Amino acid sequence: MPATRTRPSPETVAAVVAELQSLFGNRAVTSQAVRQQHAHTLTWIENQPPDVVVFAESTEDCVAVMKVAAAHDVPVIPFGTGSSLEGHVNAPFGGISLDTSLMKRIIAVHAEDLDVVVEPGVTRKQLNEYLRDMGLFFPIDPGADASIGGMAATRASGTNAVRYGTMKDNVIALEVVLPNGEVIDTARRARKTSAGYDLTRLFVGSEGTLGVITRITLKLHGIPEAISAATCTFPTVKDAADATIVAIQTGIPMARIELLDEVQVGAVNAYSKLSLPEKPLLLLEFHGTEAGVAEQVERFRAIADDYGAGDFQWAAKAEDRTRLWQARHDAYWAAMALRPGWKGQSSDVCVPISRLAECIDATKKDIEASGLIAPIVGHVGDGNFHVLPLMDENDPASVAACKAFMGRIVERALAMEGTCTGEHGVGQGKMKYLAAEHGDAALALMASLKQAVDPRGLMNPGKMAG
Amino acid sequence: MPATRTRPSPETVAAVVAELQSLFGNRAVTSQAVRQQHAHTLTWIENQPPDVVVFAESTEDCVAVMKVAAAHDVPVIPFGTGSSLEGHVNAPFGGISLDTSLMKRIIAVHAEDLDVVVEPGVTRKQLNEYLRDMGLFFPIDPGADASIGGMAATRASGTNAVRYGTMKDNVIALEVVLPNGEVIDTARRARKTSAGYDLTRLFVGSEGTLGVITRITLKLHGIPEAISAATCTFPTVKDAADATIVAIQTGIPMARIELLDEVQVGAVNAYSKLSLPEKPLLLLEFHGTEAGVAEQVERFRAIADDYGAGDFQWAAKAEDRTRLWQARHDAYWAAMALRPGWKGQSSDVCVPISRLAECIDATKKDIEASGLIAPIVGHVGDGNFHVLPLMDENDPASVAACKAFMGRIVERALAMEGTCTGEHGVGQGKMKYLAAEHGDAALALMASLKQAVDPRGLMNPGKMAG
Repeated sequence: MPATRTRPSPETVAAVVAELQSLFGNRAVTSQAVRQQHAHTLTWIENQPPDVVVFAESTEDCVAVMKVAAAHDVPVIPFGTGSSLEGHVNAPFGGISLDTSLMKRIIAVHAEDLDVVVEPGVTRKQLNEYLRDMGLFFPIDPGADASIGGMAATRASGTNAVRYGTMKDNVIALEVVLPNGEVIDTARRARKTSAGYDLTRLFVGSEGTLGVITRITLKLHGIPEAISAATCTFPTVKDAADATIVAIQTGIPMARIELLDEVQVGAVNAYSKLSLPEKPLLLLEFHGTEAGVAEQVERFRAIADDYGAGDFQWAAKAEDRTRLWQARHDAYWAAMALRPGWKGQSSDVCVPISRLAECIDATKKDIEASGLIAPIVGHVGDGNFHVLPLMDENDPASVAACKAFMGRIVERALAMEGTCTGEHGVGQGKMKYLAAEHGDAALALMASLKQAVDPRGLMNPGKMAG
Repeated sequence: MPATRTRPSPETVAAVVAELQSLFGNRAVTSQAVRQQHAHTLTWIENQPPDVVVFAESTEDCVAVMKVAAAHDVPVIPFGTGSSLEGHVNAPFGGISLDTSLMKRIIAVHAEDLDVVVEPGVTRKQLNEYLRDMGLFFPIDPGADASIGGMAATRASGTNAVRYGTMKDNVIALEVVLPNGEVIDTARRARKTSAGYDLTRLFVGSEGTLGVITRITLKLHGIPEAISAATCTFPTVKDAADATIVAIQTGIPMARIELLDEVQVGAVNAYSKLSLPEKPLLLLEFHGTEAGVAEQVERFRAIADDYGAGDFQWAAKAEDRTRLWQARHDAYWAAMALRPGWKGQSSDVCVPISRLAECIDATKKDIEASGLIAPIVGHVGDGNFHVLPLMDENDPASVAACKAFMGRIVERALAMEGTCTGEHGVGQGKMKYLAAEHGDAALALMASLKQAVDPRGLMNPGKMAG
C-alpha cells in the first residue's frame, strides 16, 4: 500500500459511483445502511464503511469493478457474508466493497472426482444442502454460514479441521481476478500437482489483499455411513486436553473434538436451553462405518476413562446431533448473551497441542485475576482455542482490562510456539502481532509478495501485512 | 533471472572457489566427478555441472554460501540426494551446488504433537528408522530415499499420498535462507494458522528457486496397529481405475493403491524376481486397527469383484510387504532394465481420477502406434501416472519418437484438466509446458513472485517459471 493512501476525495467518490452506477445500475449502492453493513459489525472493532457497495453477479463484473478502481486509484474490498471477526471487510481508506453474495451458482459437481466448482457467494450450508442427495459433503465448518469465497480468503477451518483439514487443505483451485484486471486459474482440477509455485495457497488466506476470488474448486467427501456424537466431562481442562492428545496419537480418526470450559457450558445451557454438566466438557463426533464408529467410540472411551471422564451422553440420532452442534456453533452468541449490551471479541490463538492445557490454564488464571467474564471454547484436536472476554464499552476500565487481556493471550501463545490466529485471520485486529510472530524478515517477505501482486495497493489496503 | 545471465567468467569462478575454500576448506570441491554428480544424472536431460560444490553443515554455512554467491553474482543450486528427474539440480549457468547431505540432524521429535524438526539432508528412510521405536512414522514416500529438503522443495508425494497427502500437506514450517542472506521461519509449530500469507506453501515446491530450505518441521503419524498389503489383477486398466474410484468414493481410507500395467508387471517380475500375473495389477495397502483393516479389505474386495478382479494375493507379514513395495519402488529401474544401455525419462502427468482410465488407454494406444517400449505405473488414487518410454540415444529415430511421445502425454493430460507434473516437478524438463497449463497471466504472476523474492536471480536460475 502506498504510504500516502488516504480516503478518496468527494470528487473521486462521485466519479467512481457514477461510473459504477452506469455499469451496474441499482447493484451499485451508496446508502449509509448498506455501506455500514458492509464494514465490520461484529466486535468492538470500529465500523469503517466503504464509499460504495457493488453486488457482482459474475467474474466479468468483478473485472469491471477492478478496472474502475484502478482508473480512480480507490480500494476494492471483497465481501462474502461479513462474518469475519477481525475487521477484514472494514474500509479504512474507503473505496468499493465488492459483494459476491449474488454469485451463488454451484457450477459443477464431479462426483467421481469428489470435487465441486462453486462461485464465491455460495455458503457452506447451501452447498451441503445441494450435495446431500448425492451422498457427498463439504466438511469445513467455521460455525457461521460463511461464504465459500470468504472461507477461502481467510483460510477458515472450524470444528472438524482435526479430521478434514482447513481451507488450505480443501481448495483444489481458484479463479482469481488480479489487481491488474487479469483473470487467472491458480491450478487445474487434478488432485495434486508440482507444476510451479503454489498460487492456490498464495490466495487461500490472503484476505482479499491480493485479488478477488471468483470461483473455487473444493474437495468433497462421501457422507459417512455412520456418525455418532457424544459429550463427556473431565475434572480439569488438562485432563480433557491430555485425553485428546492420546486419542489422536493412537490414531483414532476423530471427526470433531471440541472443548468448552465450565463458563462456556453455563452460557450454552442458558442460551440453547440445554442441561450439560457445568464442568470442562468435550463434544465429540465420530465418522466411519457402523463397526468403525463403534470401535472408535470404545477406544476413545477407554482413553477418556484414564483421565477421569464422566457424564457420557450419546447422540446417535441426527436431530440430537444437530441440536448439540448448533449449540456449539452458537457458543459465540451464548457468550455474548451473558452480558446483554456489552461487546465481545473472540481471541483465536493456536499452540502445539502439547502446550494447550498449560496455555488454557494460564489463561483461566489470568481471567480470574483480571475479574473478567471470558468463556473458552477450543478446537482442542488442533491446539486452537477461543476466549471471548466481554466488555462494557461505556466503562473505560472494562475496555482497558479486556484489551490488555487480549494482548496477553497472544503473547502467551507466541511464547509457546503458537500463532496469534489459528483460523480467524489477521484483518486489522491481529496486524500488530505479526512482527512478533514472524520476525521482521518474514514480514518483509510478505510485504514484498503483496507489492509484487498488487503494486498499487488497491486490494483491501490497511490489512494483513500492511 | 536477468535475461543476460551467462556462466561466470573463469576469473569469477576462481575468486568464488578461493573464497569458498577459505571458508569451507575441503568441503568446497571442484573435482569434475563431484561436479558432474551434482548435476543431472538420471535421465536423458543433459548433465550441466556447477562450478563448485559446497558441503554445508549448518544454516550458517548456507548463509555464508549465499553471501559469496551474491557478492560475485553467481547462482546457488540447493542439492539434496540428486534423485529429482527433471534436471532440477543442473547448473546451466554454473555457480555453486549447495549440498545439504551433511545436514542430517533430527533436531527434535515432539511425540505429543506428532511432529518432528529435521535438517534438510535427513532422508526419509533415515527418519523412519529413527522414529520406529517411538511408534511414529513419516508417510510421504516418493520411492527414492530422497532427502526431506529435496522432497519439500519439489512438493514430492508418492505411493501413499492418496491417504496422507503430499509434502504440501505434511510440512508445518520451514527455516529458509533467503537470497538476501536473511534467515526466516515460514510459520510456528502450531498445527494451523491464519496469520498472514502462506510462506510455507510458497517454498514447498519452489525447487530451490526462492531460497535454501535449511530446516523442516513435518507432521508425523502413529504407526498403524495393523497393515495389510495385497495385489489383484483386472481385465483392463479401466476396470482397475473404476474400482479405485468407487473404493475412494465409498470412503475406504486406502493407504496405497498403485496401478501397474502388464508391461510394467513383466519388467518388475524380471527385475525383482517376482511372479506377479502379467495383467493390469493393483498393489494395495490398508492401514488401521485390526478390525478396521479387515473391514476395509472386505469392502474393497466386494468392489473389486464387481470389476472382474482376480488373483488376490495377501501380504500381511512385514517382510512380504517390504518385498512387494520394494519391487514397486524399483519399477523405474525395472523398466530401465528392459533395454540395458538405453535411457528413459519418466513422464508424470496427473488428471482428475474420472479421466484416468481414458488417459491411460489413449496413452497405451499411442505407445502401440509409436512402437515404443513404455511401461506404466500409476498412483491411481490421485489420478497420477508415470510412463517410462525407453530410447536408444544412438538412434535419432528412437530419440525423436520418444520425445514426441512425451509431448503428447502432457498435451493429453492438459486436455483432460490435468497437470504436466503430478509430483516430479518442473525443473528444466517441464518448463515448456507451463504456459499451456497455467496461461500467460498466471505464469507472469509466478515470475513476479520470483522477482520479488529473488530479484537478482541467484537461486537455481533457468528452472521453473524462468
